[in-house]
Amino acid sequence: MSAPDSATGLHYRDAGVDVDAADAAIEQAKDAIRSTFGPRVLADVGLFGGLFSAAGLAKDPVLVATTDGVGTKVRIAAAVGRYDSVGHDIVHHCINDALVQGAEPLFFLDYVGVGRLDPGVVAALIRGCAAACKAHGVALLGGETAEMPGLYPPGEFDLVGTLVGVVEREHLLDGGRVRAGDRLLGLASSGLHTNGYSLARRIVEERLRWSYADPFPDMGGRSVADVLLEPHRCYLETLRPLLRLPALHAMAHITGSGVPGNLPRVLRGMGARVSRAAVPGSPLFTTLVQAGGVEREEAWRSFNMGVGMILVVDPGAVRELQAALRASGATAFEMGHVDAGLVEEVAWLD
Amino acid sequence: MSAPDSATGLHYRDAGVDVDAADAAIEQAKDAIRSTFGPRVLADVGLFGGLFSAAGLAKDPVLVATTDGVGTKVRIAAAVGRYDSVGHDIVHHCINDALVQGAEPLFFLDYVGVGRLDPGVVAALIRGCAAACKAHGVALLGGETAEMPGLYPPGEFDLVGTLVGVVEREHLLDGGRVRAGDRLLGLASSGLHTNGYSLARRIVEERLRWSYADPFPDMGGRSVADVLLEPHRCYLETLRPLLRLPALHAMAHITGSGVPGNLPRVLRGMGARVSRAAVPGSPLFTTLVQAGGVEREEAWRSFNMGVGMILVVDPGAVRELQAALRASGATAFEMGHVDAGLVEEVAWLD
Repeated sequence: MSAPDSATGLHYRDAGVDVDAADAAIEQAKDAIRSTFGPRVLADVGLFGGLFSAAGLAKDPVLVATTDGVGTKVRIAAAVGRYDSVGHDIVHHCINDALVQGAEPLFFLDYVGVGRLDPGVVAALIRGCAAACKAHGVALLGGETAEMPGLYPPGEFDLVGTLVGVVEREHLLDGGRVRAGDRLLGLASSGLHTNGYSLARRIVEERLRWSYADPFPDMGGRSVADVLLEPHRCYLETLRPLLRLPALHAMAHITGSGVPGNLPRVLRGMGARVSRAAVPGSPLFTTLVQAGGVEREEAWRSFNMGVGMILVVDPGAVRELQAALRASGATAFEMGHVDAGLVEEVAWLD
Repeated sequence: MSAPDSATGLHYRDAGVDVDAADAAIEQAKDAIRSTFGPRVLADVGLFGGLFSAAGLAKDPVLVATTDGVGTKVRIAAAVGRYDSVGHDIVHHCINDALVQGAEPLFFLDYVGVGRLDPGVVAALIRGCAAACKAHGVALLGGETAEMPGLYPPGEFDLVGTLVGVVEREHLLDGGRVRAGDRLLGLASSGLHTNGYSLARRIVEERLRWSYADPFPDMGGRSVADVLLEPHRCYLETLRPLLRLPALHAMAHITGSGVPGNLPRVLRGMGARVSRAAVPGSPLFTTLVQAGGVEREEAWRSFNMGVGMILVVDPGAVRELQAALRASGATAFEMGHVDAGLVEEVAWLD
């Protein structure tokens, strides 16, 4: 324990920073972190950098690295005091971002920024990340918790993740295989994933004036919090069997800016024609769009609208891939094609 | 441009999120980002994950990964509207964290969280990261800018970085070589680096009641902002020539919790006896400690107090290493030794 304050002498904790609380959080999460370590992790928690053996990862390895946050979904988590699920969100988001380049995830690092560090809350956030890492074979190799008084509102936090994966260079998906006429296969999202939350929160809180404990209509009796905090779906296990198929030309992870903002990123300058009617609807999106009076175009730029991942595939392989995806339990739907007459844009078929 | 608002329909930007502003920020920083790309970077800005060829990095490569923030130093940067230097801070901090395990830095990813996205500000932050990356041979491989209304105060931001480096496994510094009696060689810091800012800001703003434009006494006419925003020193070039010397047993980067919190992390359960008088003083620390009435023990746990990096070295090699460090322009000072009679703690010699 620290010595008692003198009449005038400042201690670090007087400035709102409690180093002991940070240590306590790590202590509470340590076993969960260690449970993610495989044989490639060469050091325990506590060194300045996490150590990961990259020996023999691939013949010609390409590292794929991505960093992201979960947006203002964290504000709902803080509002309802549910701290485990956002860890899954950020890990899944990052895994998907690496996956669309063809990569298997290797390791993950978390960053938690808080105004006042509650060890139980931070430990829960880290344990959520660890559980998601463990479930998908990813090492939680490092992290940082920063107590920054005044920067974050009381009780709120930001959660950032970085993931590194690896892909054999010959299996890299960088858009190079995409051809005009390629078909688009969509995979269903599990909800808003991690995008559009500032708009969704405004609709729920100001237009609908719902409490987060209220049931969300037509969503199987789940509460508003349950529906909005549903973790970002991870597509790793669904898509792993397809990664080395020559018929899989590219993949787009549908995150911020929706289908129009993400699909063209992998089309090498071409565009796509997309059927919105082909994407299975959900009362979640219908309710938000109607209650917010959100125009259709704006809705598709703000939310994923039901599609979390789009595969760009050889036209001759659509049936086979769709069958394989459905056999693995995924909801896969054909939703359009690549069009060389369009430049980096999505044109709607309906 | 977006369509005008209807009387009742919500747009994403009504919720405080302007996707065009994020795109504009990246556009302004793109050339700076690209300027950091070497031949191992396999894709341009804009894919879901950055691509880095790891072919032939080492015979038995160990990846070293670290993530960190710059603490409430960002609040001073925001207060005075100086957005370039904190990019250097976070890149240097991460390079040093990897360096103490013996690693050369490979690539870096940034995360900027803001309440309202000003493209010029975010571009300046990213360009600062890019300039620091370029100066030290690091690829700025990816990043994310998140506009999170209400989570950050107007005009303020958080800046997080993640760095991956590589070290040949036989040259890994993980504390395993440390022996009782090893000597400690300190390297001077350039200022507060990135720790202790919540306390320092409180002293400057509430005790001293200085404006950030005021001159900081006895600091060569530099302003309070200049002194407090002085970038975290990067030790890469100074220490690179020493990394494979058998006499270099370990290194500790002096960050949060100061010498007592960081030095024991690399001593494999032993402790160290440290001379505080051996560390060259600075009017920066003297002024903050006096004005804040900060007790000596607390000061050394809150600030680096003038020592940014500590090398743990073979006793027979002290003179030679010190001479080599001084020849490279570094201020190196002998400041104590490893003591097997202490358990994971620092005992002061004076």
